[in-house]
Amino acid sequence: MSLEVFLKAIQTEVAQTQYGESPVELYEPIEYLMSLGGKKMRPLLTVMATNIFTDDWQKALKPALGVEVFHNFTLMHDDIMDAAPLRRGQPTVHEKWNPNVAILSGDVMLVCAYELMTAVDDKIFKHVIKRFNRTAAEVCEGQQWDMNFATRNDVTEEEYINMIRLKTSVLLGFSLELGGLIAEAGEEATQLLYDFGTNIGIGFQLKDDILDVYGDPEKFGKQVGGDIIENKKTWLLLKALELSKGKAEEAELQKWIDAKEFDKEVKVKAVTEIYNSLGIRALAEAQMNKYFNTGLADLEKLNAPIERKTPLIQLTKQLIERES
Amino acid sequence: MSLEVFLKAIQTEVAQTQYGESPVELYEPIEYLMSLGGKKMRPLLTVMATNIFTDDWQKALKPALGVEVFHNFTLMHDDIMDAAPLRRGQPTVHEKWNPNVAILSGDVMLVCAYELMTAVDDKIFKHVIKRFNRTAAEVCEGQQWDMNFATRNDVTEEEYINMIRLKTSVLLGFSLELGGLIAEAGEEATQLLYDFGTNIGIGFQLKDDILDVYGDPEKFGKQVGGDIIENKKTWLLLKALELSKGKAEEAELQKWIDAKEFDKEVKVKAVTEIYNSLGIRALAEAQMNKYFNTGLADLEKLNAPIERKTPLIQLTKQLIERES
Repeated sequence: MSLEVFLKAIQTEVAQTQYGESPVELYEPIEYLMSLGGKKMRPLLTVMATNIFTDDWQKALKPALGVEVFHNFTLMHDDIMDAAPLRRGQPTVHEKWNPNVAILSGDVMLVCAYELMTAVDDKIFKHVIKRFNRTAAEVCEGQQWDMNFATRNDVTEEEYINMIRLKTSVLLGFSLELGGLIAEAGEEATQLLYDFGTNIGIGFQLKDDILDVYGDPEKFGKQVGGDIIENKKTWLLLKALELSKGKAEEAELQKWIDAKEFDKEVKVKAVTEIYNSLGIRALAEAQMNKYFNTGLADLEKLNAPIERKTPLIQLTKQLIERES
Repeated sequence: MSLEVFLKAIQTEVAQTQYGESPVELYEPIEYLMSLGGKKMRPLLTVMATNIFTDDWQKALKPALGVEVFHNFTLMHDDIMDAAPLRRGQPTVHEKWNPNVAILSGDVMLVCAYELMTAVDDKIFKHVIKRFNRTAAEVCEGQQWDMNFATRNDVTEEEYINMIRLKTSVLLGFSLELGGLIAEAGEEATQLLYDFGTNIGIGFQLKDDILDVYGDPEKFGKQVGGDIIENKKTWLLLKALELSKGKAEEAELQKWIDAKEFDKEVKVKAVTEIYNSLGIRALAEAQMNKYFNTGLADLEKLNAPIERKTPLIQLTKQLIERES
């Protein structure tokens, strides 16, 4: 089965799913956010994982959508916390409606995610929910660490990797594990799927950090250098702070971090040059490749015919090579 | 088993439960809100319902706590939406920390509620979660209706009763139903428990509305007349608006509703006098008693020895007679 077939099935499932009717303030924002697109990476991972072991991958569609609904719930609430005006190029829910609507509609969305999970077989249901609970709590923990880091000046590389593991990777890991559980793939296989997911998840986030600085402006879709403008503590900035210690770049970098008024383009250019002189890009790419390769090695260890794993390998390659 | 024994067991369970460790911003607010007291009515209803059918009521403690954690999650988020400074006489989470902490900590709290539900037997787990999902969504719907009513001038009595059914009653109903499910009491019994709970829940909220106007200031614990000051659309106000139509009280009541500047005590006294002249108190008490009595009749229909139902009857009487 090809990636496109899975994606189409997921899009049909999204279009057919109804979350509730009234009051409209509660359910319209869910439909709105779910209709804005996005890569549908998490449900894709779930159905592809199921399809490694069984042709009946369609039984994974509803729980896969549950993961996507959960992911979008975190976006709805994170966007309030980050005061983000746009999501996928469109107004965020708290901007289009108001923050109270975004809080409450998000709450119902989390409940809807649990409801979609009830589509799995009774015999795996409690285990699925326990794993989903653990994952959901970890995603919230990651978001809180991310917010805490904004006001801290002593964030280590290890803390950063752990934060993105919690905020982003564990949900990718769970998406794959869920697919394995639905296919009754056994403990070893579901663990390998989870490990594969968390590793490519970390690689995925590092790719994000790299693209934000080194993306092709014509293909990136967002403003290149957005993280630099905001002093966002990405892997690149943390590494630059570490490697510049005692060098000329140390004061220069700190000057730009402390600057209250600046021309955005000038700052982006200057900080990028500091990154270049410290060789940050190559280090970041090496780190990213390490995680992607560890993930691919996990997938290789999985005892299944190679052709069943092809769509997952294909998707991983797309993530490695993506330009936006 | 007496009410006090159940309450003590629940308090011990609350004290022993750990929700998570770090980051502290995520888990301290949960401990804080759960430690502020409250009647623990919902978990009491769950364990008492289980105890109707089995002496092993302690197996209901963890899921009962799940209902309490869910209830407190709704308080944490509702307090943000209502910009409430105090909860149980102490600063609300969004005031003591900040709104972002209250959003995210509340989200984790909802996840914790689902995790506590996993303590029920595998064979009833999916049904419990489906019923919990339905209830949770309805509670959010009730909160949204309540917010919508604040800016509407055409709220009917029927809409109001439906709003409090969703916002307050269905969770009391579910608390009891859950106790029945844990005891494997059978479909008819769990339905009667649910009906009993939703009916006393509506009675409970009407009692709240009545106490806010007619409570004894020395026993009530809050400012008497708070709802009148805020023009809160309680059953009493809606009934007064309906019954005053075409009478002298109509303009007088509208004058106080529209007043931008007023002495709070004078407004409370004036509106209370309008209620008195329209006989609102007796009507509200009749309505409240109707729901309490319907609830008690549901409980009577339940096929179980009367002495097993005594604690529930006792608790209901406390709710009817409460002064705060």
